[in-house]
Amino acid sequence: MDKDNVKCWISKDHPPGLFRRFEFENYNNLRIFLDRLADLSKEKKYYPDISFGSKYANITVYASNDKVLSEEEKAFAQRVNELIDPI
Amino acid sequence: MDKDNVKCWISKDHPPGLFRRFEFENYNNLRIFLDRLADLSKEKKYYPDISFGSKYANITVYASNDKVLSEEEKAFAQRVNELIDPI
Repeated sequence: MDKDNVKCWISKDHPPGLFRRFEFENYNNLRIFLDRLADLSKEKKYYPDISFGSKYANITVYASNDKVLSEEEKAFAQRVNELIDPI
Repeated sequence: MDKDNVKCWISKDHPPGLFRRFEFENYNNLRIFLDRLADLSKEKKYYPDISFGSKYANITVYASNDKVLSEEEKAFAQRVNELIDPI
């Protein structure tokens, strides 16, 4: 993994975090993704900020120490990438 | 129901909509609420904007015609109120 970046995620600075927007063909596919993400959050005990409508979800992984993303937080974002079916 | 308001929801003007923040004791209770809300959305074919973290959810019901909330949209917000257990 790149030192500061996770593939497909946008780095933010104030506060530090990673952002990615996921788009879906329909609401059912979005729900499948959100359910998988809920399972991952329980497993990792990490809860990102999530916004969603009927066909999209915006996910932000914030640095829990307010300063710099930890390796665990970057790994979490990487795991979220793996929740979607390969295009 | 009040002409323009729904109990516990904040009216917004630009764009017109209704907003309410729901807070929960724990992530499990939040998930139960989100699952109920997903069922309601499917039933009513209306998908509000939802943001959530580990213990809260912010819901916005926008006027789908961009001008004024319909009776159906206000009724949807009222139904969301009924998804939480009475305090």
